[in-house]
Amino acid sequence: MNREEQWLLPEGVEEILPERAAVIEGLRRRLLDLYTRWGYELVFPPLIEFLESLLNGAGRDLEIETFKLTDQLSGRMMGVRADITPQVARIDAHSLRRKGPSRLCYCSTALRTRIGLPGASRIPYQIGVELFGHDGIESDAEVISLMLATLAEAGADDVTLELGHVGIYRALVRAAGLTDADEAVLRGIYLRKARTELDAFFSERALPEPAARALAALPWLAGEDALAQGRVLLATASAEALAVLEQLAELVARVRATHPQVAIHLDLGELRGYHYHTGSLFAAYRNGVSEPLAKGGRYDHIGEVFGRARPATGFSADLKLLVACQGTAVQPGGILAPAGSDAALLAEIARLRAAGERVVQALPGADNLPAELRCDRELVFVEQRWQLHSLSS
Amino acid sequence: MNREEQWLLPEGVEEILPERAAVIEGLRRRLLDLYTRWGYELVFPPLIEFLESLLNGAGRDLEIETFKLTDQLSGRMMGVRADITPQVARIDAHSLRRKGPSRLCYCSTALRTRIGLPGASRIPYQIGVELFGHDGIESDAEVISLMLATLAEAGADDVTLELGHVGIYRALVRAAGLTDADEAVLRGIYLRKARTELDAFFSERALPEPAARALAALPWLAGEDALAQGRVLLATASAEALAVLEQLAELVARVRATHPQVAIHLDLGELRGYHYHTGSLFAAYRNGVSEPLAKGGRYDHIGEVFGRARPATGFSADLKLLVACQGTAVQPGGILAPAGSDAALLAEIARLRAAGERVVQALPGADNLPAELRCDRELVFVEQRWQLHSLSS
Repeated sequence: MNREEQWLLPEGVEEILPERAAVIEGLRRRLLDLYTRWGYELVFPPLIEFLESLLNGAGRDLEIETFKLTDQLSGRMMGVRADITPQVARIDAHSLRRKGPSRLCYCSTALRTRIGLPGASRIPYQIGVELFGHDGIESDAEVISLMLATLAEAGADDVTLELGHVGIYRALVRAAGLTDADEAVLRGIYLRKARTELDAFFSERALPEPAARALAALPWLAGEDALAQGRVLLATASAEALAVLEQLAELVARVRATHPQVAIHLDLGELRGYHYHTGSLFAAYRNGVSEPLAKGGRYDHIGEVFGRARPATGFSADLKLLVACQGTAVQPGGILAPAGSDAALLAEIARLRAAGERVVQALPGADNLPAELRCDRELVFVEQRWQLHSLSS
Repeated sequence: MNREEQWLLPEGVEEILPERAAVIEGLRRRLLDLYTRWGYELVFPPLIEFLESLLNGAGRDLEIETFKLTDQLSGRMMGVRADITPQVARIDAHSLRRKGPSRLCYCSTALRTRIGLPGASRIPYQIGVELFGHDGIESDAEVISLMLATLAEAGADDVTLELGHVGIYRALVRAAGLTDADEAVLRGIYLRKARTELDAFFSERALPEPAARALAALPWLAGEDALAQGRVLLATASAEALAVLEQLAELVARVRATHPQVAIHLDLGELRGYHYHTGSLFAAYRNGVSEPLAKGGRYDHIGEVFGRARPATGFSADLKLLVACQGTAVQPGGILAPAGSDAALLAEIARLRAAGERVVQALPGADNLPAELRCDRELVFVEQRWQLHSLSS
């Protein structure tokens, strides 16, 4: 291995240099401030936890994504979090134990063993919110609004909101009397949207109608007419599924009213994170980009393993992907001050910094290059006083 | 294991709940803004790297502190950073490659296998600065000033600055012609400040005077008279050591001039981080607290393994310890808005939030408790308009 290779970073691992770091830090602050104004309180869950705690309940799907570590102090296995949502659920259920709703937000680094897509990061800088303790479209609508406000703050103005609800599928599975094994097979087919397999699945089984017919049609109930078609399909198949559809319709109406500029795309057969989610599912896409910029949903049993089942809804995003929506930020300039420890000079530098200026003091004998130091002005002592002169490049 | 034990966090691992998280986030921003005004640019080095990169050079001492992971994509070993300083040195030497000085700062989570002191954290939220590319007391003075400004911003007003310089010991070791093996033994004795062992060390060896006598006295050259006594001791022992002492004296004079309120404690026999450091050493203590709140020093060879040996000086601190200096912050209150999706209500909520207010909208059917939600006012519609009423608790 030569020296260059030796310092290569692992795949999906990147360092963030000053220009990009400043943009990320700026968006981080604006988003956390936004969440604060909406009543969401910041928490910092720990980077590592015991594996039982990290992978239990909502975290089960994360097993293969999670790096394992041996705790030298206890001999027990720990994991580095691959997702922060289950940690926040533990904090709500186990540490805060509030009577009413909890609104929490976070912005921290997670770590994943694998790369989702080529070029993706294994170290997402995950930012998100969770609303615990309320079951109803009001909390889903609040979280979706905040997700859309997040994208607006990030500068993404061409956004499509994808909406689904796993409750329709769940109700139809019950109405059709599917065994757990059959349900797992069917779910796989749904996720692949494999029409031939789906037809074979139903032709091989004698399942009660009209629930079976509805299950066979559900994966293609998407887009403009999904609500109208869904109402026809579900009317006879399952009253429960129809009721869920009407909830979803109300949620759509609310979002349309508050965010008329956002395109809404319904997908009634969407089962992303099925183990995890129990209700509405939502994801925000930039037009032309296949991966969602932010996604979330309702997962009402997440606190159960922590001793308190609380309804929950939330979303998360990778701050490193969110900043890609922004143009390159204009980096603020600065003032190059001369070297020296003269009290008047140091006082002038302190005064300028206190006034919010960025002041870099030259170091004797070094190449104090204004371009490298991002300085557009210099501090000079002329006519008995300190003055700022422009540094034309 | 019962349910309570199951959700216990590992020793030295803690979650940070809203009240403390808000204080940490506030100090994080104020400190990064401070560093920006001094010309330091933020970087985010990655949480994991290949082990060769993480532990090489300056990182060697970190081997036992570093959690190891297998990279499933390459089969190579990776580590979770136990310290961020060596990563920043890699960025300076390998990624930025600037001609003149680089000033970088960071604030990220590190992870350690072990706990330094009982009750300490294994997940420090490390904040710090590094100044690369200048060798001289001006850069040390700048970094020390910024370290003291950091403590002042954190609210620590009773600070003692401890100062040392490993160059004195290094010069005397050379003058006494100590072998590497003997030097390692002597260093151990220095770190333990074990007087009897020290006497035995010198009586067992015939080492040239007066260097040996100076080495025997150095561990006790501390406090008020260290400079004066050091000048006498080193005058005949080593011209090189004396020159280093004079540099240190000049650094002390500079810090005294700019920070007259800070107590300075010299310790000429301090060898903390000897492998790592090559010049001055500094640490800031709160009076009465045995662990330093911030520490740093000069380490001029840190970039060598990354292909570019650049002089470097810097300091770091654990943000979670720094906030302990602050009183409990007064949490801002908020406005409890009624539930509903009425356009006028939503517009009023949006207006208040845009004006910087924290507005929590009640959720129907939930216990919207003003105390839990930290709301001191409520939004009510009276006399045909939205008004804010005080919520007396």
